[in-house]
Amino acid sequence: MTRLLILKLGGSVITKKSEGKAEIDHKNLSRLAGEIAEAKRKGNFRLVIVHGAGPFGHIPAKKYGLDRKVNTKTRLMGFPVTHQSIERLNLMVVEALQKEGLNAVAYQPSAAGILKDGRIKYFPVYVMEKLLRLDIIPVAYGDVLVEESLGAGILSGDYLAPYLAERLKAERVIITTDVPGIFASDPKRNRKAGIIREINSRNACSINIGNSTATDVTGGMKGKVMELLRLAGKGIESEVIGALEPGILKMSLLGKRGLGTIIKK
Amino acid sequence: MTRLLILKLGGSVITKKSEGKAEIDHKNLSRLAGEIAEAKRKGNFRLVIVHGAGPFGHIPAKKYGLDRKVNTKTRLMGFPVTHQSIERLNLMVVEALQKEGLNAVAYQPSAAGILKDGRIKYFPVYVMEKLLRLDIIPVAYGDVLVEESLGAGILSGDYLAPYLAERLKAERVIITTDVPGIFASDPKRNRKAGIIREINSRNACSINIGNSTATDVTGGMKGKVMELLRLAGKGIESEVIGALEPGILKMSLLGKRGLGTIIKK
Repeated sequence: MTRLLILKLGGSVITKKSEGKAEIDHKNLSRLAGEIAEAKRKGNFRLVIVHGAGPFGHIPAKKYGLDRKVNTKTRLMGFPVTHQSIERLNLMVVEALQKEGLNAVAYQPSAAGILKDGRIKYFPVYVMEKLLRLDIIPVAYGDVLVEESLGAGILSGDYLAPYLAERLKAERVIITTDVPGIFASDPKRNRKAGIIREINSRNACSINIGNSTATDVTGGMKGKVMELLRLAGKGIESEVIGALEPGILKMSLLGKRGLGTIIKK
Repeated sequence: MTRLLILKLGGSVITKKSEGKAEIDHKNLSRLAGEIAEAKRKGNFRLVIVHGAGPFGHIPAKKYGLDRKVNTKTRLMGFPVTHQSIERLNLMVVEALQKEGLNAVAYQPSAAGILKDGRIKYFPVYVMEKLLRLDIIPVAYGDVLVEESLGAGILSGDYLAPYLAERLKAERVIITTDVPGIFASDPKRNRKAGIIREINSRNACSINIGNSTATDVTGGMKGKVMELLRLAGKGIESEVIGALEPGILKMSLLGKRGLGTIIKK
């Protein structure tokens, strides 16, 4: 089978917040869709896309306490509203990808899986494997799922992407963010912050990873890296790259390494 | 556990075709959403909704040959476009239900199951059971699914509704259409056509069921009845009712029988 890449499109890259309301960043999104389409035509790979929800998820999730352990009743009230908001974003993301000629189909995580204690308890990948065999690009996303202990819980795209990579035996995971990689401190606060070129099991503990500045109900950069290190331990490499500079994503999809921060064993 | 009802909202009831384009029938949809909400407040039942796609599905499905056995490449091109069109409808249906205060969440069939030779080969209901335990209303729909022999195939809502009824051990299935039940001939063509009050295994063969007038890529009324008779054989009764006359759906959800055509063993 052709090699498989998992691409995470960061919520911060494809959305923006304007006057407290969630908006899609059409310009970034359509440019990135174009880069994916170009790479897909040139390269020989299958692809799963997982996108973050940005404010489409964070605003309702915070409102209904899905990011903390409030009582189940409030969380349950937040389930329909939060999913609906995120699905609206997903529909626009898939549309942008289809416009560039990509064979992209929405993939609703909350229809496929459930969580327990914040981890995936059940999430079969059988249907996704079948879609990939047809060279369809499933477009999944950070979503609200049934959570066995709390009723409803958040499945972060940063957790779903490595999960799928492992289960689907991906070659590589590419994570796009609004900064050009992982920094030792927050580059938006400290202009002298430098990109960490490689994170591995040996240097991981000595690195002080800067946290994301934006509201993130899903754990920010530290959470991302922990999942990717776990994945690296199983032999699947990933790279966190910046998606605001044109051309980077395309190069990464076509196999170029060292564009951002590589996470390996 | 509280009894479970499966409600099929007919594509012909919630959509319309205007100048060859698919449109939602907002007026009907919001009235029906209101009736469901009233019944849900008064009655004690859990609910799964399955809606048809109407022209949101039929138009692209016909265009790409998903309704017949054309070559796989064309069908595959139709998969993303057709699903996207149907999901757009689903988003609006869920929104209308949420507006009436219902705990409704989209449920994407193509993320959960696959077909083989036109039948469901794989479609676990584990996640749906969990949603129902939280008294969430999953809103599924007729969709395009991976089909093992042909690449892509149509899962009709009229097939999905009885499938879910059986797997989830529903008490009853309510099927809404744009005519007040099942007729011996097409009521839109023959004004003297009479409603059949009951269809069972004894009278089924002697009844000449009128076919639906509208474009229906999923088999029309005969296909519906065959599935419901099969379900009746397993002890789950259903009733086909008209949804254009106000109040009928609400009464049916609250347990009234004999409003349209009952299908029983």
